[in-house]
Amino acid sequence: MEVPGPVDVVVIGGGVIGLSAAWYAARDGASVVVLDPEPGRGATWAAAGMLAPVGEAHFGEEPLARLNVLAAQAWPAFAEALEAASGTAVAYRATGTVAAAVDASDRAAVDDVLRFQLALGLDARRLSSGQCRELEPLLAPGIRGGAEFAGDHQVDNRLVVTALLVACARAGVTVVADEASTVTVTGDRVAGVALRGGGTVAAGAVVLAAGCRSGQVGGLPPEAVPPVRPVKGLTLRLRAPASGPALVRTVRGLVHGRSCYLVPRADGSIVVGATMEERGFDLTVQAGPVHDLLDDARTVVPAVDEYGLEELTTGSRPGTPDNAPVVGRAGPDGLVVATGHFRNGILLTPVTAEAVAALLAGRPVDAAMAPFGPGRFAPEGAAGRAGTPVGA
Amino acid sequence: MEVPGPVDVVVIGGGVIGLSAAWYAARDGASVVVLDPEPGRGATWAAAGMLAPVGEAHFGEEPLARLNVLAAQAWPAFAEALEAASGTAVAYRATGTVAAAVDASDRAAVDDVLRFQLALGLDARRLSSGQCRELEPLLAPGIRGGAEFAGDHQVDNRLVVTALLVACARAGVTVVADEASTVTVTGDRVAGVALRGGGTVAAGAVVLAAGCRSGQVGGLPPEAVPPVRPVKGLTLRLRAPASGPALVRTVRGLVHGRSCYLVPRADGSIVVGATMEERGFDLTVQAGPVHDLLDDARTVVPAVDEYGLEELTTGSRPGTPDNAPVVGRAGPDGLVVATGHFRNGILLTPVTAEAVAALLAGRPVDAAMAPFGPGRFAPEGAAGRAGTPVGA
Repeated sequence: MEVPGPVDVVVIGGGVIGLSAAWYAARDGASVVVLDPEPGRGATWAAAGMLAPVGEAHFGEEPLARLNVLAAQAWPAFAEALEAASGTAVAYRATGTVAAAVDASDRAAVDDVLRFQLALGLDARRLSSGQCRELEPLLAPGIRGGAEFAGDHQVDNRLVVTALLVACARAGVTVVADEASTVTVTGDRVAGVALRGGGTVAAGAVVLAAGCRSGQVGGLPPEAVPPVRPVKGLTLRLRAPASGPALVRTVRGLVHGRSCYLVPRADGSIVVGATMEERGFDLTVQAGPVHDLLDDARTVVPAVDEYGLEELTTGSRPGTPDNAPVVGRAGPDGLVVATGHFRNGILLTPVTAEAVAALLAGRPVDAAMAPFGPGRFAPEGAAGRAGTPVGA
Repeated sequence: MEVPGPVDVVVIGGGVIGLSAAWYAARDGASVVVLDPEPGRGATWAAAGMLAPVGEAHFGEEPLARLNVLAAQAWPAFAEALEAASGTAVAYRATGTVAAAVDASDRAAVDDVLRFQLALGLDARRLSSGQCRELEPLLAPGIRGGAEFAGDHQVDNRLVVTALLVACARAGVTVVADEASTVTVTGDRVAGVALRGGGTVAAGAVVLAAGCRSGQVGGLPPEAVPPVRPVKGLTLRLRAPASGPALVRTVRGLVHGRSCYLVPRADGSIVVGATMEERGFDLTVQAGPVHDLLDDARTVVPAVDEYGLEELTTGSRPGTPDNAPVVGRAGPDGLVVATGHFRNGILLTPVTAEAVAALLAGRPVDAAMAPFGPGRFAPEGAAGRAGTPVGA
């Protein structure tokens, strides 16, 4: 494989985060190389494309929820720009979400999320069981009620990959199908990235956006290595029969304390997700999680039994100790980290791409991103840049 | 595609039945062509390879059970001959079967099968829950007991396909990847088979072994058309982790009135089957049956949750009005029907191949096959040969 000559920016990782950052940087005039053995085929590929700022109400996660809300609001313009730049559709669908609770505890959990949504100023309302079924007649008669989250939309994450690859190509980005081995550093500054397959791409800046593998790239000082771990997820691709009623909204089911969602695409497919499993880097599709997802999905939408089961996909999300992303400068000059998006990678793509591009170009970064710099994980007394807040 | 010249026998259908009949006929000295667009990829491919003469105890099916027992007894020699002829393994495993009942009704059903097995002279015994788990420690602690069917073995049906294709090739059989359109008849006698792709293979005898599609071949008088319908089945291919305890015997679970089986291969894979669905020729893998099979399998063997889920396969068995095969002469001279094997296609392969070869060569056919001629479905007063018993 031919190694490209010196460029302004090397992006390590070609998922939605890396590709969108590369696209934005190229629009800013930078020459950009993206390194990924299989662009878009990691967590990005397994995702369902839900754009839900508040999945569950977790105490202490308000700053993340606010970032998520900003990201959701940024999606329509991002989708429009991406479709214009690529000439391909990404199927952003503003159809909202219905949450459906199966038992009384599930109902209480939906109410918690509802309160959180309302506190954030989002468009949400409580629904009786009957009202749930008025909105989505395929919901099971036995559900205990739920809520409508009118602003929780979806996008086809796989179409986003295609569009980003085209937009990147048109913007002059080079995608190299190889893995980053080491970030090379000269003095206080990054000098480029050495490839697993041999050779080095020289660059003035490096974006570390390798998802759950971001901690495996060599050459970085400890304080610049993001504390990400793989959190395995399984999604199923179903297909509804061509005739008969279909889901319109995303359905988020709470089933005896477990959560599942059904995301209906315009093309008749339905993405069902997602498990959360601590399995290291093992991506085996296991029978148990497939069973549990199907069990929950058919409890909420009994018609699922008749749906074709077309695909079982696993991926590993980049989880962090506080479940929030890691976006900002770290370690040597010229290094920007953009990973740890956990369950919100698709959602956070527009704001992350913007933040990375701003950091690379020396523009100010949105204040909502400030809490999520790499420095928050630095050990007490660790020196210097690792503790630098985003945009500093 | 080149159409072969005149041969002695054309076999319509390249599943285990058609291929084994072709191999036997070729061994008898006949020139043989097999027609199948995808040899071995129908019901044969989806099967689990259980060689169980008595799956359930059905009143009035004693003649079929006796044929099944003969077939099971024929398997060791058949497997040996096939391996010798092909030089490839078929993984016949004489490890027996444990039946495991989940509730009291399931226990009663297992007892029924046990009585039937004993009445047929088979090696079977009742087991307590603890005895079940002594034999197979992976069985769920909660099962209510069961039985050991020491003579219910298994073979790898996909390896059988490979071996049959090699044995056929070595015996001079030509496999043509096309579909039979019509049996051509001249006077009272078959003259050959016209192909969907054009052309006709001239032949003195035709074997109709097209499984659930055997009723769709044109050119035959009504009384020679076997009354087969497709009965959809789903099997799953799982894989146990390389370390840890594994199943040794086939496990037949009865789970609240539903039946499932787990067939452990020597290579660490486990075939789980099988649903029975009346869905016409639709082979869509549906979410509901996948759920139900996994649900039953993990109820009987909880470790299934950790197993990799590698494949979801559907196939259509050839069902008949009395659940028994249709093997014998029918319609014009030279036509032999061999289909309708329903759930016992792999099991009945040796005795069916032998019967077809005998019919083609004019040898007497085993009396156990006599009840299963095509004539039993002929309408009252239908003329002549359709009512001819096997071997007449």
